[in-house]
Amino acid sequence: MSSTFGSAFRVTTWGESHGSSVGCVLDGCPAGLEISRDEIQRQLDRRRPGQSKLTTPRGELDSVEILSGVFEGKTIGTPIGLLVYNKDTDSSKYEEIRNKPRPGHADYTWKQKFGHYDWRGGGRASARETIGRVAAGAIAQKMLEAVGIKILAYTTRIGPVTCPSPDPFDPELAERIESNLVRTADLEIAEKMVEAITNARKDKDSVGGVIEVVATGVPIGLGEPVFEKLDAAIAHAMMSIPATKGVEIGGGFPICSLRGSQTNDIWELDDDGAMRTRTNNAGGILGGISSGMPIVARIGFKPVSSIPRSQETVDISKMEPTNIEVKGRHDPCVLPRAVPIVECMLALVLADHAIIQGIVPRSFAKE
Amino acid sequence: MSSTFGSAFRVTTWGESHGSSVGCVLDGCPAGLEISRDEIQRQLDRRRPGQSKLTTPRGELDSVEILSGVFEGKTIGTPIGLLVYNKDTDSSKYEEIRNKPRPGHADYTWKQKFGHYDWRGGGRASARETIGRVAAGAIAQKMLEAVGIKILAYTTRIGPVTCPSPDPFDPELAERIESNLVRTADLEIAEKMVEAITNARKDKDSVGGVIEVVATGVPIGLGEPVFEKLDAAIAHAMMSIPATKGVEIGGGFPICSLRGSQTNDIWELDDDGAMRTRTNNAGGILGGISSGMPIVARIGFKPVSSIPRSQETVDISKMEPTNIEVKGRHDPCVLPRAVPIVECMLALVLADHAIIQGIVPRSFAKE
Amino acid sequence: MSSTFGSAFRVTTWGESHGSSVGCVLDGCPAGLEISRDEIQRQLDRRRPGQSKLTTPRGELDSVEILSGVFEGKTIGTPIGLLVYNKDTDSSKYEEIRNKPRPGHADYTWKQKFGHYDWRGGGRASARETIGRVAAGAIAQKMLEAVGIKILAYTTRIGPVTCPSPDPFDPELAERIESNLVRTADLEIAEKMVEAITNARKDKDSVGGVIEVVATGVPIGLGEPVFEKLDAAIAHAMMSIPATKGVEIGGGFPICSLRGSQTNDIWELDDDGAMRTRTNNAGGILGGISSGMPIVARIGFKPVSSIPRSQETVDISKMEPTNIEVKGRHDPCVLPRAVPIVECMLALVLADHAIIQGIVPRSFAKE
Amino acid sequence: MSSTFGSAFRVTTWGESHGSSVGCVLDGCPAGLEISRDEIQRQLDRRRPGQSKLTTPRGELDSVEILSGVFEGKTIGTPIGLLVYNKDTDSSKYEEIRNKPRPGHADYTWKQKFGHYDWRGGGRASARETIGRVAAGAIAQKMLEAVGIKILAYTTRIGPVTCPSPDPFDPELAERIESNLVRTADLEIAEKMVEAITNARKDKDSVGGVIEVVATGVPIGLGEPVFEKLDAAIAHAMMSIPATKGVEIGGGFPICSLRGSQTNDIWELDDDGAMRTRTNNAGGILGGISSGMPIVARIGFKPVSSIPRSQETVDISKMEPTNIEVKGRHDPCVLPRAVPIVECMLALVLADHAIIQGIVPRSFAKE
Repeated sequence: MSSTFGSAFRVTTWGESHGSSVGCVLDGCPAGLEISRDEIQRQLDRRRPGQSKLTTPRGELDSVEILSGVFEGKTIGTPIGLLVYNKDTDSSKYEEIRNKPRPGHADYTWKQKFGHYDWRGGGRASARETIGRVAAGAIAQKMLEAVGIKILAYTTRIGPVTCPSPDPFDPELAERIESNLVRTADLEIAEKMVEAITNARKDKDSVGGVIEVVATGVPIGLGEPVFEKLDAAIAHAMMSIPATKGVEIGGGFPICSLRGSQTNDIWELDDDGAMRTRTNNAGGILGGISSGMPIVARIGFKPVSSIPRSQETVDISKMEPTNIEVKGRHDPCVLPRAVPIVECMLALVLADHAIIQGIVPRSFAKE
Repeated sequence: MSSTFGSAFRVTTWGESHGSSVGCVLDGCPAGLEISRDEIQRQLDRRRPGQSKLTTPRGELDSVEILSGVFEGKTIGTPIGLLVYNKDTDSSKYEEIRNKPRPGHADYTWKQKFGHYDWRGGGRASARETIGRVAAGAIAQKMLEAVGIKILAYTTRIGPVTCPSPDPFDPELAERIESNLVRTADLEIAEKMVEAITNARKDKDSVGGVIEVVATGVPIGLGEPVFEKLDAAIAHAMMSIPATKGVEIGGGFPICSLRGSQTNDIWELDDDGAMRTRTNNAGGILGGISSGMPIVARIGFKPVSSIPRSQETVDISKMEPTNIEVKGRHDPCVLPRAVPIVECMLALVLADHAIIQGIVPRSFAKE
Repeated sequence: MSSTFGSAFRVTTWGESHGSSVGCVLDGCPAGLEISRDEIQRQLDRRRPGQSKLTTPRGELDSVEILSGVFEGKTIGTPIGLLVYNKDTDSSKYEEIRNKPRPGHADYTWKQKFGHYDWRGGGRASARETIGRVAAGAIAQKMLEAVGIKILAYTTRIGPVTCPSPDPFDPELAERIESNLVRTADLEIAEKMVEAITNARKDKDSVGGVIEVVATGVPIGLGEPVFEKLDAAIAHAMMSIPATKGVEIGGGFPICSLRGSQTNDIWELDDDGAMRTRTNNAGGILGGISSGMPIVARIGFKPVSSIPRSQETVDISKMEPTNIEVKGRHDPCVLPRAVPIVECMLALVLADHAIIQGIVPRSFAKE
Repeated sequence: MSSTFGSAFRVTTWGESHGSSVGCVLDGCPAGLEISRDEIQRQLDRRRPGQSKLTTPRGELDSVEILSGVFEGKTIGTPIGLLVYNKDTDSSKYEEIRNKPRPGHADYTWKQKFGHYDWRGGGRASARETIGRVAAGAIAQKMLEAVGIKILAYTTRIGPVTCPSPDPFDPELAERIESNLVRTADLEIAEKMVEAITNARKDKDSVGGVIEVVATGVPIGLGEPVFEKLDAAIAHAMMSIPATKGVEIGGGFPICSLRGSQTNDIWELDDDGAMRTRTNNAGGILGGISSGMPIVARIGFKPVSSIPRSQETVDISKMEPTNIEVKGRHDPCVLPRAVPIVECMLALVLADHAIIQGIVPRSFAKE
């Protein structure tokens, strides 16, 4: 089950960082949805390496091929296979980690669990695995847009630099986020964030941060009581992204220090006489079910574990202390490239629940 | 699927707060595990109402009945049915909420999703639903202890009062936690936390906080790559508990502001020559797989939404503003009673993964 | 997973034959469906022991209790707990089978698999386990009837006596089936079937047979391609019933000896200009998807393994040959009581797929 | 869920008959299993078109590519992606069926369910979809052989010609089956079966039949009580293969006409003092759990629906009667090519349950 996500809208991914390819099969997408290879490629381009001076120089175009499930430009209700061949692999730097587990990486746990594993470039533990998520997530986003749901993620913290949450209904938000290298909502703060990253790189170090994601247009009723609450599904999705250490919904941890009179979201009527809450500490979810307010989550990413300096570790072939200098081509900060991944994971969750709740038709092609 | 949790060790719960009963079916527990009704009751007693001056006075003994799956004091590998009849229900106070959704509660989303629902005492959205989780979790804990895994949760924050993380190997920790009303690890801080709660109650208010949970003795290898990472499963489990707003693993959000050189856990050898990490920012999980270090998570609980004072809301029968005074019998703070719930949810996750990984035998009864 | 069936409409059963109770939790039934305890009891009465001279005299009323999920006479979309306490257990006859596995029974496989098991009355391997299926199936039938789908099963063979398939649209069929002890469609043949059973009993023997089940009113489109074909789901469901040895759909095995020109169902227009097939060798399913024609399946039941005569076996405490005389109270033929079980299993399958396909609303209570 | 099969050993397939490719992702195969592309190709070659004069001339080599999950000749515990590009597609013959559903085919149900679908060559309803099953099944077979389980299928009926069940332990059986075009166990009968097929083709017709499959070396204990009985899982698997109309286990339908004294399998000791049953009417499964005896199932395949003669149907663009002559390149009988498919589906079922039961190690690579 490890590589399958979702129930009604279900993605199964495969692939190792230095294997022949990565990809996914998406099962459960309704028939009749218009989708092109370019729409999928666009999201992949946002997460691909080498897109800016802040990211790893690994030269992958991550060009996607549609293997099945699309005919005459529309989905046909059958599994959609999506394939990206790995082109620019350089495994020469990784031989060393076979016996010297890198601090912060999965090398040792992986070796102990599987006995035999692909150590090249982190193998399947590499964030390259997320290509399948993004490819499927792009289709999920297309489907959600067809029913009025829009998802947008952006960086709100890099190291010590924070950016306040923007207005999710700001019509220029998406463009502004995409206009700066760190994908944050404020252009001045963006420069400070870029600086924090370049400073970390200069110091042969890396830096962590926080991404916020918002979904607008989500109708009331998504999410199931008890174990499949919408917030539980989101937390699951986000914490499955490599390098995440925390997830919070709406007001998150900060409101846990407060009192109920400060944090309860008051129901009121908007100008059109519709129900809304005055504040949104709930993050758009009440009792596990979407309330019609924007869904808001924040995800914490630890600093990248691969840092280009010598670190202590153990040589497990001799069981004695040693040092390792992690080579390979790494990002000093994952946040800019993680923004589309976060969007796509939320899209996968909402797509799943939108189908379960009957918000999305069983087929877009039936009159 | 909403009321089923887990894959190999699977609990399905049922029941409304003011219905006839709550309970669960636990499927997948190996045969031959010794378990008594008293062991299950003990955990239920830790979460039951009326246990201290800090909790709701609803007078439920929550006495559990084993319906199946246990024979001659041992499990037989078949589903274990566990039943608790509701005894002290008083639905008179809830008639009002049918048309006046309470701020912070699921009343409105529930009504919109289901059309017809049980509004009495919150129905299935009530935290009374967690009885099934705790009953099943008690069996999970018993099973995990049989393979050396111990789980302990405790309060680390109530409103503004915080308590530092204790040493999880302190042999007196469990007893100390249980000796104070808020279930925290430090007796002096406990008093301040009690004060924070009683003050909130005095002010007709409620207060939130944070619970930390630690599992020791977890062998390396639990958790599956990609979507069923151990941390993702824990985040899912915890965020499915009513009133939770955030989950973090190990170093959590705080380490997301730092650099890799500060947060990487260095591999080293312990005095017995075994692998360990010098620090545990990873919270015992690397690449989604347990590392052998203690598993550590923290869960944020919002302040209880039910506060005994007048709050604004909307009368949805007339679609006009109104006020509501939430009656019924409520806790001013859920943390003390949530501690066993958090333990049990972690136990359900680890039990599931321990079976999947083959740590637990298919039957304890086979020689 | 062993005790859970279905995906969107999901039943989990529990209980041993001589334990305290049997029952089920049904999750996924839409809110707003009117259902009464009596409607569930009616199907349970059709499968309960002691209902006629042909069945075991075990004196169980199988009185069902609704534990949750129903409020003011209607479902509320939450899990429906259903409980039947065992009243008339007599375990004294079963001590012997602990070391002498009964031919045709699960005693030995169960013991080897679980190590520790409940040997009394077959424990969970007893057909008493099907009470949970029938209770949930009764609700499934009610839900399906609300969208125009009707299910009817009847005996078509007892030992050598066969009865031709009746017209499924005969308005008196249901009543005629219920008017005879073997639940077959022809009253004269019914007498011969009764005779076959009483003869078997007289000879201290048992007898097998075949049940056919038909669903009418099933709209086109139920079932999913490839692995969740409707016929695959039906085969799974039926073969999970104790004592079944074969399942066939529509024309079944007989048409497998023929040629395509003889078996292809020709598409034509009915008097109202709607599509139908001239014959129904497909049994209402094409490519795994319902075609709008009646769904037809036949299920073979082996003769009851418990026969009141001495049979050879092995004493596994000494690993030497011995004899066993199976005592306890048994049916000489399971078919009459299996008819409602077969109906209910088909109902569970169709309910699941009707929800997945969006034939059934997410809530019957929403205007 | 439609395109995913299995729980612990899980295959997800994709692909349309005339799309770019077909393939699968296999998740859950333990690490450390030696597997080569050639071993997978060998089973694919047994099902590929054009392999003999009895099969369709569509010229596909069905050459498989391993996309992931295998490193240095061994599995690594991660998803194994397997890809076969379609090379010899000729869609020109299928334009006609867009409005004229072929008798016995899924054209009409598919169109009604999905609205938009790939009508070329049957699209995903084509048996070409089974390539993914066979590729994954070949790996399942390799894994099962590593723990002593062997699977063999063979034709026992073509039209009116039947072949008795062979001794499953005959060491020359596998070779004999492979030495004749219809894959049956008796060479003389094989000739008659070939004749039955060539006669059908001569008559512009098709013919059905029955395949039997046997697994030897299956240890006691596979299969789960109640809904995941081993026989239920087998029935599900087999009935998901295109063109199947019936499944029976062990004695099957014929023993359903008999009495218990005739059909009960007597427990006895073999020459080595081990438990076995004298007969095997149970087909190696008691109470849903493998008994250690050979597992035996038979599957009925209807005659191929595509026959090269004019058949009546309805033109659904005008809703009026018409005729259709099904073109394209078709087999007159699917049985010879279905033999490896049946083997592979049984392998997928047993692999799944072998992992669940802990018969197969979590990793073959750990010492």
